[in-house]
Amino acid sequence: MSEKKQVEAITAMDEDFARWYTDVVKKAELADYSSVRGCMIIRPYGYAVWENVQRDLDARFKATGHENVMMPLFIPEGLLQKEKDHVEGFAPEVAWVTHGGSEELAERLCVRPTSETLFCEHYAHVVQSYRDLPKLYNQWCSVVRWEKTTRPFLRTTEFLWQEGHTMHETAEEAREETERMLNVYADFCEQSLALPVIKGQKTDKEKFAGALATYTIEALMHDGKALQSGTSHYFGDGFARAFDIKFTARDNSLQYPHQTSWGMSTRIIGAIIMTHGDDRGLALPPAVAPVQVMIVPVASHKPGVLCKAEEICQRLAKVCRVKTDVSDQSPGWKFAEHEMKGVPVRLEIGPRDIENGQCVAVRRDNLEKTALPLDGLEESIPALLAAVRDGLYQKARNRRANMTFTARDLGEMKDISQNKPGFIKAMWCGDLVCEEKLKEEAGVSSRCIPFEQEKIADTCVCCGKPARNMLYWGKAY
Amino acid sequence: MSEKKQVEAITAMDEDFARWYTDVVKKAELADYSSVRGCMIIRPYGYAVWENVQRDLDARFKATGHENVMMPLFIPEGLLQKEKDHVEGFAPEVAWVTHGGSEELAERLCVRPTSETLFCEHYAHVVQSYRDLPKLYNQWCSVVRWEKTTRPFLRTTEFLWQEGHTMHETAEEAREETERMLNVYADFCEQSLALPVIKGQKTDKEKFAGALATYTIEALMHDGKALQSGTSHYFGDGFARAFDIKFTARDNSLQYPHQTSWGMSTRIIGAIIMTHGDDRGLALPPAVAPVQVMIVPVASHKPGVLCKAEEICQRLAKVCRVKTDVSDQSPGWKFAEHEMKGVPVRLEIGPRDIENGQCVAVRRDNLEKTALPLDGLEESIPALLAAVRDGLYQKARNRRANMTFTARDLGEMKDISQNKPGFIKAMWCGDLVCEEKLKEEAGVSSRCIPFEQEKIADTCVCCGKPARNMLYWGKAY
Repeated sequence: MSEKKQVEAITAMDEDFARWYTDVVKKAELADYSSVRGCMIIRPYGYAVWENVQRDLDARFKATGHENVMMPLFIPEGLLQKEKDHVEGFAPEVAWVTHGGSEELAERLCVRPTSETLFCEHYAHVVQSYRDLPKLYNQWCSVVRWEKTTRPFLRTTEFLWQEGHTMHETAEEAREETERMLNVYADFCEQSLALPVIKGQKTDKEKFAGALATYTIEALMHDGKALQSGTSHYFGDGFARAFDIKFTARDNSLQYPHQTSWGMSTRIIGAIIMTHGDDRGLALPPAVAPVQVMIVPVASHKPGVLCKAEEICQRLAKVCRVKTDVSDQSPGWKFAEHEMKGVPVRLEIGPRDIENGQCVAVRRDNLEKTALPLDGLEESIPALLAAVRDGLYQKARNRRANMTFTARDLGEMKDISQNKPGFIKAMWCGDLVCEEKLKEEAGVSSRCIPFEQEKIADTCVCCGKPARNMLYWGKAY
Repeated sequence: MSEKKQVEAITAMDEDFARWYTDVVKKAELADYSSVRGCMIIRPYGYAVWENVQRDLDARFKATGHENVMMPLFIPEGLLQKEKDHVEGFAPEVAWVTHGGSEELAERLCVRPTSETLFCEHYAHVVQSYRDLPKLYNQWCSVVRWEKTTRPFLRTTEFLWQEGHTMHETAEEAREETERMLNVYADFCEQSLALPVIKGQKTDKEKFAGALATYTIEALMHDGKALQSGTSHYFGDGFARAFDIKFTARDNSLQYPHQTSWGMSTRIIGAIIMTHGDDRGLALPPAVAPVQVMIVPVASHKPGVLCKAEEICQRLAKVCRVKTDVSDQSPGWKFAEHEMKGVPVRLEIGPRDIENGQCVAVRRDNLEKTALPLDGLEESIPALLAAVRDGLYQKARNRRANMTFTARDLGEMKDISQNKPGFIKAMWCGDLVCEEKLKEEAGVSSRCIPFEQEKIADTCVCCGKPARNMLYWGKAY
């Protein structure tokens, strides 16, 4: 057994994108498979990414007035059934607990696939007056949906997420909240994750079970497939009526409050991998990278090198997440390893660099090398990390622009869908029949009705009747 | 319906301790009941306490080299059965998932009651060489144990906790880890939560299913019952053998690694309530209080009062978690409300205070009032918060000292157990028969064999044969 690890190549993206993806997940040590059907193990490196996602999002939730709570893991079957559309959407894909200890349960419990029903039951206890509103709650937890085919982060039976659930005095306030939280998600994706997203509304066919309206942010992956990256739902008072949640309004009348929910999950790590990654492996946006800067000493046996590396590390620890790789692997091995793990910036420092009072910085986004003076690294490194974020973002935006097409009729739609991976912008009449036909004949689903509308044509891409909206269409994860 | 809330009295502690406890949980808005058998809802205020517990503990775990991961929620029945003692201990109290969607599962899955088996399965994948050791993992999650009788925080079917799981090259390293993490728990309880704890080892009867040794910290509640507040287990290589986890050692031989696990749960919130609380409600140690300082403006309609309160709030926000209560309730109502919620320090400020350049600080631990100059609040308030922590700690230590008794024979043991709530120190021969007899005849269980031994007598309190150790005994939650 060799003591030194080998840098194993991963499958090239162009050769087999799905294999490239699982290779990255494995080699970057993000996740491992478990013997539990469809459930993954999130390894320390992957979980550290999730912790950074959580910290960033949680601060945004708190800044917009939300509080965290914890609801039960289980939902009694009767409770799940209270809202008709909701149970129809979720009942087919839940896990059922039928026995506790050695007893058979009188009523089955499902493992929560989402928690609207649990929140509603609690709201019925704590919402009595307009003074109790709004309730702006969120929880960080895992949920379970019995999926047939699974892939790490993208679709797993159990996944980690946050689910916000809010109750409001008026429909207008609830609609504002739905939009506010979609914007929180979009800002987080664009600013922190360097993921360009399209904001829009789901069609009735694609909306959440029980919602009046579902808003979404859609990102485009390297292979041209779309990934729904976060959703925000407006429920009106449908659940409130089903759960008999009433409050005394300002005019002393009894009213039903208006509700929203919104969620983002570990799926977002899949979006990061498939947007920024390349044939060298993962590329992490600095805001969520567990290690933002990895210092690699070169010719580290020479006097002064390790000591200098350690000194730089201590200085940089005040401005970023930094580590020094002092393992006994070769520098070349370390370069490949930290590129595989997507570390945003690598700092190489050897005897000659020290003589020249500099080090060499290598950006993960474009592999550009720059010599940086050792004086002032506390300013130059944060600037470089910001540049890496911008570089990742621009690359993703450019790729999306190059992979966004326009179709005016069914023929064009089929042609693009078969030959050009990416988003397809096309007009739609609003009819479910056309939406289903496009799925069947062109293999595309509606991604969203974007808030930023363009008029591509006057008529529906499918039936030729007058069009209502421009939609993004595509293949999706 | 009255617009102003009423301050409702809670049951007095001496009248009915159990009712006092549930009153505090409810009135301080820590938790609510759900329709799911034995599962609680943790409300924003209670969850904010838990977030502070998490943040503090997590920093201690990371400072000792641990990394967070996420294992699946489910354990296949076959996996749970791999370690014999472990399955015997847990199988009777797990929830079983038998159906996924509409299909019956070929193998039942239990909802994790604890995750040793899942960690072991993963270790078998990732531990090959001594270079892969130690593995120092932790996860924050919820677990489920099918309890017959439940009480918020103290014993619930589902509860939140962290579970550390580590693997080591040698037995000695694993034993050191077990002790290190017990000390982390003890330091956290004493320093951050102001909870005095006894550190010691569990008897074989009371140890964790599958462990070679279980260490514990035991706290004494207001009513004289003990509460096990955190445990740390040493497993030797028993699980490693059962799961066939082997590594190539430094001498090239194949070895089994040595394992530990350790956990602390939302139960600790129960310990805070029952140690520091009083007839006015909760009293929170400043380190985990969601609001450390509540500013209450008095005669707030007078010009300048609200403005001054807001100015102080902004200044103090830099050194503590502070809020101003600007609701339209009376000052008296607010005083009672924030005492009920256990806010460590209340600052009262009215027109006369402003004239005198001062405010009045009221400590929650002893209700002492002090006039504090407005200049220098940034220094005096953190000092006062530290004093509140010390005050809570000293009060708890004094109470424990007054409620710790010594028994030399079975008669004394029975007498104390019937008449004097608290810890009983007594010698033990080491025989299970005596331990069971003391349970049956005196109604006490062994709490721990404390690391700090005292010689109370030469002979066992029960059988009179030569004694091996001094133990703490008592009634327990």
